Amino acid sequence: SFANLRIHPHGLVLVDLQSYSDHTKGREEVDQLLNKVEERMKELFHDNIKRVKRLPAILRGGVIDRYWPTADGRLVEYDIDEVVYDEDSPFQNIKILHSKQFGNILILSGDVNLAESDLAYTQAIMGSGKEDYTGKEVLILGGGDGGILYEIVKLKPKMVTMVEISFASNIDQMVIDGCKKYMRKTCGDVLDNLKGECYQVLIDDCIPVLKSYAKEGRMFDYVINDLTAVPISTSPEEDSTWEFLRLILDLSMKVLKQDGKYFTQGNCINLTEALTLYEEQLSRLYCPVEFSKETVCVPSYMELY
Amino acid sequence: SFANLRIHPHGLVLVDLQSYSDHTKGREEVDQLLNKVEERMKELFHDNIKRVKRLPAILRGGVIDRYWPTADGRLVEYDIDEVVYDEDSPFQNIKILHSKQFGNILILSGDVNLAESDLAYTQAIMGSGKEDYTGKEVLILGGGDGGILYEIVKLKPKMVTMVEISFASNIDQMVIDGCKKYMRKTCGDVLDNLKGECYQVLIDDCIPVLKSYAKEGRMFDYVINDLTAVPISTSPEEDSTWEFLRLILDLSMKVLKQDGKYFTQGNCINLTEALTLYEEQLSRLYCPVEFSKETVCVPSYMELY
Repeated sequence: SFANLRIHPHGLVLVDLQSYSDHTKGREEVDQLLNKVEERMKELFHDNIKRVKRLPAILRGGVIDRYWPTADGRLVEYDIDEVVYDEDSPFQNIKILHSKQFGNILILSGDVNLAESDLAYTQAIMGSGKEDYTGKEVLILGGGDGGILYEIVKLKPKMVTMVEISFASNIDQMVIDGCKKYMRKTCGDVLDNLKGECYQVLIDDCIPVLKSYAKEGRMFDYVINDLTAVPISTSPEEDSTWEFLRLILDLSMKVLKQDGKYFTQGNCINLTEALTLYEEQLSRLYCPVEFSKETVCVPSYMELY
Repeated sequence: SFANLRIHPHGLVLVDLQSYSDHTKGREEVDQLLNKVEERMKELFHDNIKRVKRLPAILRGGVIDRYWPTADGRLVEYDIDEVVYDEDSPFQNIKILHSKQFGNILILSGDVNLAESDLAYTQAIMGSGKEDYTGKEVLILGGGDGGILYEIVKLKPKMVTMVEISFASNIDQMVIDGCKKYMRKTCGDVLDNLKGECYQVLIDDCIPVLKSYAKEGRMFDYVINDLTAVPISTSPEEDSTWEFLRLILDLSMKVLKQDGKYFTQGNCINLTEALTLYEEQLSRLYCPVEFSKETVCVPSYMELY
């Protein structure tokens, strides 16, 4: 163990204790040691201490990484107790980690994507229960975790087409492979086969697919874009993700029926600048559109979305 | 700034950088410095590094404390940007802190109690919309933030009696004072007066009140206990909170109509032992009871409850 004590002139005293241990017993020992330090310091300062704050121990270097910061950069610790899946695809790192409370969590290149507890996300991107999908034509862009597909198929649509893999998106075949095995509470059995009675999954880049649908005049009642969150970058001129986002939007409008609806995710509610920029893109589409937005609490995100 | 570098023999390298600064510019400088360190280390190790993880900076000693661990002891950082209210009552420390996404958050002695975003908590403890409060007699124990009272009054009950201050609970008059001023999204105007058309707030210890109601045969359709969470301690024999909890339960059953319902909060879903112990108490009441439970996501808790 190593300890650092720092006393700042205006009255801030910082005690850092770092301990090497590969069992949880070490954590208890550290706690007991800190109890003694705190007690002794209170004696020395004759109870003249205004505020005492002790933070939970930070665990570093272990097999299990419990720290997955929020989209707005805050440090949050998850109750991860198992690494279920950890693979590198050509596009990204794909992790599925088990949380005691959230079930399995899909984490793509460090970003918490979806947990088995997160039906609220899927319900919101489907229109929060206000849409009637019965007998409708639906196009899902992305959605590799299968959550949206699974929920819509239950509602007896005419046909759901899900187009997975886009080189500019963060979803790929290996995501589908991991999810169909370890996120079954989210996707049920819909990813076991690429074709069902009222759905098909195309493993294809969505841009050419959208272009060919537009060309042949294939139209949908709903387009649900689950490809990427609103980019955090606030320089749309420099970030190609914004360009990709506008392209998808324009192409989607072309395959949408006159009274059709387009649903997509935004981002963490605190990223106000990025969200405003996204809204500005909506006024730059080739056709006029109306839009509304909704804030939901997705359990595993630990931030409003 | 101080830096510590520690190299463990099995290949773990820890870099800690501590920087004193009272402005956020310091944070950017630290980030840039760490970028350089990371770059240089990758060079030195000839890209032979398996995993790199950098945690967001932890801010200590400032006026605003952003770290309020969960009930199951995990470190979480809130987006707190303002201290709205900070007072010590004879019973506890009462803080109301402003979060960009959750609105004002009531924190009692370090425990996140309720935020303005947390209607989900109030709805759950009222029976998740499945109860009809119209014309009913309701007794609320605790509930000093006014959330439950405000929501029930909207539903045209016959009479709601809220009994606030219990010496064994963590609610007191100063909580009401803080909430009626700074948690108005939660409590509306119900705390402005202690009496309304269909409600009254008694500033009194709930134990003698319950005892006198039981004696005079006053009965309620609903008793909602918002006094304390299920104690985390798993030694009910030693912890008087458990005794208090059983006493309240027994007294509540005595003032509940035959087909009446009692609602209360549990605790974080991960505290399985404590929750099981609570369920065991239910079989030890003076009369037989049936119970069911529900898990909800309360936005500001950052854990399922």
